Amino acid sequence: MEQLTKISEIRKALEKVRRQGKTIGFVPTMGYLHEGHLSLVRESLKKADYTVVSIFVNPTQFGPEEDFNRYPRDLSRDAQILEKEGVDILFVPQTIEMYPEGYKTFVEVKDLQNLLCGKSRPGHFRGVCTVVLKLFNIIQPNMCFFGQKDAQQAVIMKKMVHDLNLDISVEVLPIIREHDGIAMSSRNSYLNPEQRKAALILYKSLKEAEEMIVEGERSAGNIIERMCKIINSEPKARIDYVEIVDLKNLNPVIAIKNEVLIALAVFIGSVRLIDNIIVNIKE
Amino acid sequence: MEQLTKISEIRKALEKVRRQGKTIGFVPTMGYLHEGHLSLVRESLKKADYTVVSIFVNPTQFGPEEDFNRYPRDLSRDAQILEKEGVDILFVPQTIEMYPEGYKTFVEVKDLQNLLCGKSRPGHFRGVCTVVLKLFNIIQPNMCFFGQKDAQQAVIMKKMVHDLNLDISVEVLPIIREHDGIAMSSRNSYLNPEQRKAALILYKSLKEAEEMIVEGERSAGNIIERMCKIINSEPKARIDYVEIVDLKNLNPVIAIKNEVLIALAVFIGSVRLIDNIIVNIKE
Repeated sequence: MEQLTKISEIRKALEKVRRQGKTIGFVPTMGYLHEGHLSLVRESLKKADYTVVSIFVNPTQFGPEEDFNRYPRDLSRDAQILEKEGVDILFVPQTIEMYPEGYKTFVEVKDLQNLLCGKSRPGHFRGVCTVVLKLFNIIQPNMCFFGQKDAQQAVIMKKMVHDLNLDISVEVLPIIREHDGIAMSSRNSYLNPEQRKAALILYKSLKEAEEMIVEGERSAGNIIERMCKIINSEPKARIDYVEIVDLKNLNPVIAIKNEVLIALAVFIGSVRLIDNIIVNIKE
Repeated sequence: MEQLTKISEIRKALEKVRRQGKTIGFVPTMGYLHEGHLSLVRESLKKADYTVVSIFVNPTQFGPEEDFNRYPRDLSRDAQILEKEGVDILFVPQTIEMYPEGYKTFVEVKDLQNLLCGKSRPGHFRGVCTVVLKLFNIIQPNMCFFGQKDAQQAVIMKKMVHDLNLDISVEVLPIIREHDGIAMSSRNSYLNPEQRKAALILYKSLKEAEEMIVEGERSAGNIIERMCKIINSEPKARIDYVEIVDLKNLNPVIAIKNEVLIALAVFIGSVRLIDNIIVNIKE
């Protein structure tokens, strides 16, 4: 595995790869890798001839009060893991090269960026779109891989790629969970053992929602009410949002039908966690 | 010359060209071609192995009160001209394919977009950036060509390409003028003979500014004052702006030094015309 930090270096390396007619798969990450990331990496290794993983904790997607500085980082461990998986290039760009002084260009996906997580994280998806577009332009992959854990991000990435006529296929892969059901996340490392236990409430409420639907409940309002009640029964939890939305446009639904996304964000102490499930009713 | 309207068609055609190792030059236009456009086309024909010209009157760069509907169009004449020049592909995308229902993604170059023309045309440069980025992604050119007539657009395009790490060289070519000095523009076709004569005042004021600088004047304020006086002496003219700015960041300068852009927008009747000169002082 080559580990590159300069844009000119990776451009050069990938030019060669493209000239050989190889397809390039790309997995953008913020590092501190877990099995969720690795499921994306393995899919890329399977589908593409050549796999690039980036690790970049992107400052433009963090709000001023958010956890940019304390976001967990462990590059040498990440590099070892990726090397072992068989990744071809690990790209670790420097902030000063990604956002040099006087940087001014930003990409937005209107409407979608203001819903769900966008409400409590203004500017977050603008930052995500901008950095991913930059990485796309540097790497020029044929396919890229995102996790369903960041459900809204996945929808926005697909929309951006489609709207901007990027010739890149976007694959979204299922959430990877710990044995007890908690969704894997680099931010889980913030949790102390008690908070870790409290964090189970997210998935528990999602499973309850799923069960209600299986049993015939079709009112999004009733389901959300029940979910909130469950989450609020956990003293360490504070709800940011609990929503049931259309999977395509992320607009709230009133009645459950077809495919819906049940998504939530909950603070456990000061740690904001997200989780979601997709429920598909065939009636 | 091939004339293509569908994105999938031009992608396919250009894939072949790229596989042959040919470089692609791209000239984005809104059509109704004049010698200004043709100077860009000829430069592309000279520098690139393969030249693509697009004609697309882009709705997202026009304000609601602007001239989108009446903007002059003559595709068959344009196609004849480009064929004769030796262009390889004329791309004429359809609005419905460029902006399908539910289109949501936009690109902005902050700060630069709010100066000069951006003040009286809010959203204009967002529309320009968005459509050009889409065309770049469809065509994937090695080089592209813009006219200095749209000075602010040229600065913004360079900035967007640089910020977004697009691997495209941006060339900006000089303004082409009629024999009497008026800058070539598709919008000149709106002018009746009397307005056409009145429109000479734009270039006249720019030449006067240049002369003042040659003669030693260094106060931007004094020069602008003199230019406004000249323009206001023409009863058909109404100033939108007259500014002297830094060529890189488009910020107003107080004293003339190094390279400055003297730019103006003036209404002749209801027709808004722009013009500019670059003055370079070596002291």
